[in-house]
Amino acid sequence: VRQIGRENWEPVYYNLNVRSKPRSRRVAARRVAILRSAAAAFRRRGFHGASVEAIARAVRMTKGNLYYYFADKEAILYACHDYSLGLALALMAAVRRSRQPPDRQLRRLIEGFVHLITDELHGSALTLELDALGPARRRRIVARRDRFDRGLRAILRRGIRQGVFVPGDAKLYGFAIMGAMNWIARWYDPAGPVSSNEIARTFADYLVRGLSVRPRATAPRTP
Amino acid sequence: VRQIGRENWEPVYYNLNVRSKPRSRRVAARRVAILRSAAAAFRRRGFHGASVEAIARAVRMTKGNLYYYFADKEAILYACHDYSLGLALALMAAVRRSRQPPDRQLRRLIEGFVHLITDELHGSALTLELDALGPARRRRIVARRDRFDRGLRAILRRGIRQGVFVPGDAKLYGFAIMGAMNWIARWYDPAGPVSSNEIARTFADYLVRGLSVRPRATAPRTP
Repeated sequence: VRQIGRENWEPVYYNLNVRSKPRSRRVAARRVAILRSAAAAFRRRGFHGASVEAIARAVRMTKGNLYYYFADKEAILYACHDYSLGLALALMAAVRRSRQPPDRQLRRLIEGFVHLITDELHGSALTLELDALGPARRRRIVARRDRFDRGLRAILRRGIRQGVFVPGDAKLYGFAIMGAMNWIARWYDPAGPVSSNEIARTFADYLVRGLSVRPRATAPRTP
Repeated sequence: VRQIGRENWEPVYYNLNVRSKPRSRRVAARRVAILRSAAAAFRRRGFHGASVEAIARAVRMTKGNLYYYFADKEAILYACHDYSLGLALALMAAVRRSRQPPDRQLRRLIEGFVHLITDELHGSALTLELDALGPARRRRIVARRDRFDRGLRAILRRGIRQGVFVPGDAKLYGFAIMGAMNWIARWYDPAGPVSSNEIARTFADYLVRGLSVRPRATAPRTP
């Protein structure tokens, strides 16, 4: 259990063919390592600019070896999206199950999602281009992404309805929140001076406060 | 003069070789049309995936014709960044010259920037990959982008110092704001139901309110 702000947040790991056998677990770990390498390469050079050779080299594999885990570059891109969305949807489910008030749920969701971005695949997968995917795979990713967006809007709408959040367009609020969070993948440096906990807390404070009818009078902590 | 929210905002157009001669003005307009087409193509397919042919076709030109305006694809990408940043920096200069209180300046900056994203190049240029640029061009773009970021942080720091904004890390607040705004390029549909004025107002309300020590008790307008 990881400590985030004043709350415990249990990270949920998406099941990537993890069965009980050690060999399967090794395969799953290898797949995730490939996805991390690929997500970084796609973000830096774009899908068309990133080569399977470079992705394989970064995890000390040959190209031929990598094809044991993924059929082609498109399959890797799909798995990047699928993996990240799996984590995001598991977070959403945990938050919504909690039955806390909407401002509390929004805070937990933002803190958890920021950690997904900073700690998993450096979040890049969630912001990658979708156009390189074939229509069937694309549809599946868009459907799962829509499910996440709907969950976020449901929390926002409930908050507005209960008078906890100021009135307004939940869809636009949701876009602002997702943009602020997804953008982290563009500037976050794991070796930099700001910890992922600080980012998570600052973003949650800022983005919940902006919607709250009765925000706290001052920031929760002076710097 | 365009009406934005409760403020008049004079859009400032970046000088793209616009001299007094009509021919030069035609050339400049043609260049901007190419940049719009290119920015859309780069966003959809990535720099490496977008072809000069497709960019030319979208503005009803031949590839050879397009090379009269730009030396190569990298020059187009550079011009996209340069054009967008010119508009953004002109907006920043106008806002900072105004000597208004920081919350008012931040509101004007957000409203103006959202309009840049929705109305100019569909903002995509500002979020495009930089890695495809050669080192000299890349340095120039990064330096101008840093200048914009420093301007935003200066407004935020002044607000914190004056007790208008809650204490906190101005750099992180700035990243949250830029992320929310830049992300608009990913979901905005000019033919969709939400106008750019509504987005500008909602984002300004939300993102200024989240920092304000004394936010307005309710939203400025019920939906």
